[in-house]
Amino acid sequence: MGGIKSERLLSRLEELASIGARSDGGVCRLAFSDEDLAGREYVITHLKRLGLEIRIDAIGNLFGILRGQTNLGAVMIGSHTDTVAAGGKYDGALGVLAALEAVECIVESDSLPRRSVIVASFVNEEGVRFMPDMMGSLFFCGRVSLEDVRLTSDTGGNTIGEELDRLSYAGSDILDDIGVDFFLELHIEQGPVLVDAEIDVGVVTGVQGLSWAEVTVSGTANHAGTTPMERRQDAGEAAGAILTRLRDLPSLIEDLRLTIGSVTYHPNLVNVIPQEVVFTIDARHPDLRALKKAEAQIASIIQKTGSETACSVTSRSLARVEPCDFSETVIAAVEAAATDHNLSQRRMKSGAGHDAQILSGSVPSGMIFVPSEGGISHNPSEYTTPENIIRGANVMLHATRNLAGRL
Amino acid sequence: MGGIKSERLLSRLEELASIGARSDGGVCRLAFSDEDLAGREYVITHLKRLGLEIRIDAIGNLFGILRGQTNLGAVMIGSHTDTVAAGGKYDGALGVLAALEAVECIVESDSLPRRSVIVASFVNEEGVRFMPDMMGSLFFCGRVSLEDVRLTSDTGGNTIGEELDRLSYAGSDILDDIGVDFFLELHIEQGPVLVDAEIDVGVVTGVQGLSWAEVTVSGTANHAGTTPMERRQDAGEAAGAILTRLRDLPSLIEDLRLTIGSVTYHPNLVNVIPQEVVFTIDARHPDLRALKKAEAQIASIIQKTGSETACSVTSRSLARVEPCDFSETVIAAVEAAATDHNLSQRRMKSGAGHDAQILSGSVPSGMIFVPSEGGISHNPSEYTTPENIIRGANVMLHATRNLAGRL
Repeated sequence: MGGIKSERLLSRLEELASIGARSDGGVCRLAFSDEDLAGREYVITHLKRLGLEIRIDAIGNLFGILRGQTNLGAVMIGSHTDTVAAGGKYDGALGVLAALEAVECIVESDSLPRRSVIVASFVNEEGVRFMPDMMGSLFFCGRVSLEDVRLTSDTGGNTIGEELDRLSYAGSDILDDIGVDFFLELHIEQGPVLVDAEIDVGVVTGVQGLSWAEVTVSGTANHAGTTPMERRQDAGEAAGAILTRLRDLPSLIEDLRLTIGSVTYHPNLVNVIPQEVVFTIDARHPDLRALKKAEAQIASIIQKTGSETACSVTSRSLARVEPCDFSETVIAAVEAAATDHNLSQRRMKSGAGHDAQILSGSVPSGMIFVPSEGGISHNPSEYTTPENIIRGANVMLHATRNLAGRL
Repeated sequence: MGGIKSERLLSRLEELASIGARSDGGVCRLAFSDEDLAGREYVITHLKRLGLEIRIDAIGNLFGILRGQTNLGAVMIGSHTDTVAAGGKYDGALGVLAALEAVECIVESDSLPRRSVIVASFVNEEGVRFMPDMMGSLFFCGRVSLEDVRLTSDTGGNTIGEELDRLSYAGSDILDDIGVDFFLELHIEQGPVLVDAEIDVGVVTGVQGLSWAEVTVSGTANHAGTTPMERRQDAGEAAGAILTRLRDLPSLIEDLRLTIGSVTYHPNLVNVIPQEVVFTIDARHPDLRALKKAEAQIASIIQKTGSETACSVTSRSLARVEPCDFSETVIAAVEAAATDHNLSQRRMKSGAGHDAQILSGSVPSGMIFVPSEGGISHNPSEYTTPENIIRGANVMLHATRNLAGRL
């Protein structure tokens, strides 16, 4: 059984990265933009060249179907080609192009597998301009409606529906006639674990759960020079007291990842006491019980610390995804593929959300991680070595063949 | 000696407030905007009606001159008519319209004072769109050059020079032929001291000093889900540690007013570890030694706390104004006027900066404060009762007559 064609895959990664290329070496293909559409067209061109059957659903998810010898449920492989505003060349793109490469190798081998293999590219995995993230896989799994997706608007008031129509981005295909029995996604780790431990391949056993909240602290805007300290209702000071306690939580709950990524002051002027501060909390944990414990402590800190200040404090949940466990069948197929290629491997949880996490609610799923240099992603300097790309893609091809050959 | 004509002054305050009126009852006359020009035209119309000699300097400062009987140095009275973006009806406007009212009363009295009286309206006191604040009085006192003013740009890259030309806002007059011996400004307190103590008039003895700094904390943007806590360079966490200690300073230095008004996160996304946080510090104290002590402790906290974090921290001074003491002659004139009107009065420092503070570097100066309901200013709900407006304007008229009659 041959391996992938390394140069072909590597040069396609560069070609796709040239679509929406940034001057700093990064990539910008925000979902439902002209660049995002051009990226998808690039993939379609190659799927067509291989003679695959193309289907595009009502929100733009792309599928290229290689028919197998039987009507057994298909193996779906892929990822996404949208990026964050200042993204890199590998997040998402690697998973789609490695899936294309795997199917191309299968086509070239002239030995059709038992099961159909479907290359999938899901829209709006990043959720930067239009929330939530992983929107394409959520829609594919029936967890958001077409109407809700189309009415989703960005901060400028433009809706996805308008962008789909403007770009002729949507299709009318469905995939209901083809059962999907497995989903497998190759992705960069986006963290430093594999690089630090010098491990070739991460065998992903699941995705940690996530809980996002937004907290609004309301005080009174007033003059910085004339308002005595004891007369102030300073939303910044109250928010700061809450943030200090929240930032202690990871030292109290093992394996908790907690990020205060967004803090916005209003009116945000040097000489005006802040009237309002809005901040977000991103809490993640691989264990559901620990995640719930973190959520309870976050709520308690917001309530208790907030009540000790002169300001009013409210909070709301922005998103919540429970931890998921991947299919032991898919995990075993990945492990076997890595072993056959003599690669070092480690079972690990994913810290980031992925389409595979959504698929796993409907289909036995799994993921392969390759090392991210410096643990950096969502950044123009995101980088994975050619050697590791090739290793990951070979594991992808091998595991896909394994799953597609099953009875 | 008669008093001011109350209804005339109160109705002019409403008329001026209708220029740039906001739907929420506030006023927006940002410096060098169409509304700001219209506000100045309103004042010019009235100065001309009184037969005053109008002069407009190269950055748009307005002067209306009532010639006195002698060539003794003039008494200048006034304030500004620009506002913050969501300002009130009284900040600045009261000082200019009360000066107009005082001169109108003097004209109507048919008894010319010894000294000339000049109504002054200085441009860009607020410094919202174009920094620094008190720009008009700084220029008048020769402390900023015409070239520097004209080249000052807003965040959109537009310069004051372009706006002056677009609006034909500037004149070519100078005031060098007229000596100015006194400056007096009536202003709302913008703080709660007079209202809380139920005092009619504040006799302002000086302005507290001010020190503004901007701190930039630089970390590394990374994925909130995949980056282990111990591997992070979180600019938000580092900034938070500094802010917590800075906010303790007012409890250590008596009478220090410290405000963190602006905090800006970058990239400011829920699931990205903050790469950079920029925040401002506004420190004010009426005593120069205490202000310097505060500046030293601020620098020490930034340096020490910053060095304990994984991020790099830099800071720069944005503005610095030393505390000023007003002229005992002007202070005594204000006290005498308040006493003659049987008003309760209190000597106090100004918490906010004012044109009088700049003028005091060149001319014996003073200020009169009237109570601000709730201590609120720079806000559409800024309010001073008609009774207090009339009291303040009468003190203004009386003190102006006193100063203008001096040998």
